[in-house]
Parts: sequence; structure tokens; C-alpha cells
Amino acid sequence: MAHTRSSLKPAAGFTEPERDAVYKAIFNRRDVRDQFLPDGIAPDVLDRILTAAHHAPSVGFSQPWSFLLIRSEEKRRQVHQLFTAANEEAADLFSDERAKLYQSLKLEGILNAPLNICVTCDRTRGGKVVLGRTHNPEMDLYSTVCAVQNMWLSARAEGVGMGWVSIYRHDALRDLLNIPDHVQIIAYLCVGHVEELYERPELEVKGWADRLALEDIVHEETWPESKTGK
Amino acid sequence: MAHTRSSLKPAAGFTEPERDAVYKAIFNRRDVRDQFLPDGIAPDVLDRILTAAHHAPSVGFSQPWSFLLIRSEEKRRQVHQLFTAANEEAADLFSDERAKLYQSLKLEGILNAPLNICVTCDRTRGGKVVLGRTHNPEMDLYSTVCAVQNMWLSARAEGVGMGWVSIYRHDALRDLLNIPDHVQIIAYLCVGHVEELYERPELEVKGWADRLALEDIVHEETWPESKTGK
Repeated sequence: MAHTRSSLKPAAGFTEPERDAVYKAIFNRRDVRDQFLPDGIAPDVLDRILTAAHHAPSVGFSQPWSFLLIRSEEKRRQVHQLFTAANEEAADLFSDERAKLYQSLKLEGILNAPLNICVTCDRTRGGKVVLGRTHNPEMDLYSTVCAVQNMWLSARAEGVGMGWVSIYRHDALRDLLNIPDHVQIIAYLCVGHVEELYERPELEVKGWADRLALEDIVHEETWPESKTGK
Repeated sequence: MAHTRSSLKPAAGFTEPERDAVYKAIFNRRDVRDQFLPDGIAPDVLDRILTAAHHAPSVGFSQPWSFLLIRSEEKRRQVHQLFTAANEEAADLFSDERAKLYQSLKLEGILNAPLNICVTCDRTRGGKVVLGRTHNPEMDLYSTVCAVQNMWLSARAEGVGMGWVSIYRHDALRDLLNIPDHVQIIAYLCVGHVEELYERPELEVKGWADRLALEDIVHEETWPESKTGK
């Protein structure tokens, strides 16, 4: 196909400052729950963040994602109620010190953040047979997650914080947002400007868990025999 | 908790060139199948890419990911056989012009790329109850996908291309790489330096699918009534 060869161009090289800027976004990105400012997000900034999402990789170029922008306080209050109900169930699974610590954590910014974004995956987009999904049907979900991570990093570069809320019942949120059955909710995001961020992940700072050593999770050639058990 | 407040610092602002560099990585990232150079990846470059992956967000800070680095040609040949078998099955699902186009596409760089990386998710890491996974048990899979997208963008900034292969049978690849049952394969990646890239996604360039208009996939407040059917 003659036109394909001409579409290959020299890969745009990155200068060292450009490379460092990419790492700055990656290493300074935080899951934000409580540092949101009330100021709205300018339309051009939001447009850039959504355009970044839309340029994520997608299986068979199926672009299965959609973005519901939720700004109304009424709607956010309703979502917050769903979170609160689910969070009480979740908290009950911890005991003693762990329960106390869990209850001290703020796990969402649904009301603090001026904008919530529900990111969905249309399981039917791209038709019945999607290139690359035959043996791995979950690939469309993964594509949508790549879009979320693009949003997170571009938001960071725009001075905007983002937090991913995963404590809610799917069916309840689906009903509230009128999302049809063939569309799966992937992420519920709280989005707003931030001036302060944790230097390290909040759950690390607050003693919930430690960062693993990289050498313990990188292996050569095959899974190590010593780690095949649970 | 007194120590938490002091861990909040002014969010590092991005200059306009830094912001543009982040978008450069996002918009110039490609799913690479055929433009790999044979040169190996320097250890410090690979270390930065894996460190970027390890700084992805993870549910309850569970860091469920592991990375198998596959360099041996023998092992890559075996993986390539798994791909070929699955790809024949997948190709059979298309007919006529679509089948012809499918068969003309190169869908993996398993042998071209000097390095393959299998990214996995340990479903048991973080213990029986993981903060944020109670109502959405798939969140650990999604965390691992965020790590893949971090790799993809940092690789781009390093002049390294990456392609995600999803055409294989999970069980076959799991057996080949000795991966235990509680660990799920998320991505099989081909990784190598590149000098040329497609200006737009390869499947768009080759006429497989068109890019959707952003305004068709962004909605306000709730899912639009007009789009609730399949």
C-alpha cells in the first residue's frame, strides 16, 4: 500500500528537558482527594485533557471511551451518597488499628472538586469483531484505562489534580447516570485545580502501605520458581 | 496525623515548554509493530522506563504489577508461534476486503524488537482486602494498565517504541512463561528503539478505522437519551 510508507516520518526526538518534563508528570502525579480548589476548569484546558484521553492507544483503533462531565452539585451529591453507602460496607472489612486508619482517610473529592468525569467503555463500539480483541476481549477496557492515565498526566501538566474513586456499586451509578447496559463504567474521576500535592503517594505517607522494591517485581525471561506460590 | 500535613508541598508548576513536552509524548506515541531497530536498550534507559511504570497509580497502593523481561531469541520464537496460531484463528473472522486488509497488517514486533516485556497483575498482592477494590475488584487490573501507559509515554520520550500484542491464548502464554494461576497477564509488549514512526495511528493510516469526533463522545451530566440503544 503505497500511501502507508509515506506516512512514516522520522520520529520526533525528545531533548533532555522534554524527556525530564514527561518524567516530572509521571513522578509528580497524585491521586488527589482533598486538595481541590473550587475554581472551574477553563474550557481550553479541559479540551486539551479530553483530547489527550482521546489519543490513548485503543485495540483495533476502536476508541471505546466516552466521557460524562458532571458539574451539577445536585448530581455530585447523589454520587456522594452512593460513595458513602459503599464506603461503610468497605470500612466494615477492616478491624482494629487498620479500621481506625481507614476511617481517617479521605478517599474521594466528589464534592470538593468542581468537575467529576465518568469514563465509560462501550463494549459494542467497533462492531462484533474488533482486531486484537478475539482472544483478549478485555482489551477495550484496558484501552479505556490508558485514556484515563493520559488524562491524569496531562491534567498534572496543566496544574489540575485528579482522583479516581472506586468505592461505589456499579449498578447504582449506572442507574443514576442513565448509562445503558452495553456500556461499562471504568472510572469515576474528581477533577480540579490544585496548589498543593503530597510529595509521595498519600497512602504511603499515611502509613497504609510501603513502596515495593523495583528489583523484587522485575524478572528475567520467565516467572521465578521462588515466586510461583501465593 | 501531624506528619501528613507536612508532606503536602506546593505542587510543582509546569512551564509551557514542559507542558508541551507531555503532550508531545501523548500525541506522538504509537503502537509500534515494524519499525524496531535491533540495538539493545541501555540498562539506564530501561531502568527509567520500568521506574515510570512502578510510579503508576495503584488501587490501595497495592502495586500489583510485575515485569518479565524476555530477551532470548528462543523464547521470543516460542511466543511468536503462539501469536501465529491465534492470528490465524482471528483472521478467519473477517471476510472479503476486510480479510485481505487484515492479512496485510503486521500486528506484532515480537522478533523484530530486541526486548519483549510481559506485564502481569498479581491478584493476591495487597492481601485479602485491598482499599478501593471491595466494590470494584477489577481495579488492580486497571492499575496495571496505568503502569503500561506510563511505560509507553516514557519510552516515547526515550526514543524507544512499544507495541502491545493481544493476539495469543492466555493459557498458552502463561504456561510458556511459567506464570502462576493467581497472576494475570495484562500486556505483552514489544520494545525497541525506533527512528521512524507513523504520523497518525497505523490503523487509521491504513484505512482500518477513522478517528471519532471528540464531541460525539463527550456528554454533559448524564448519558444522552439518543445514545442509550446499541
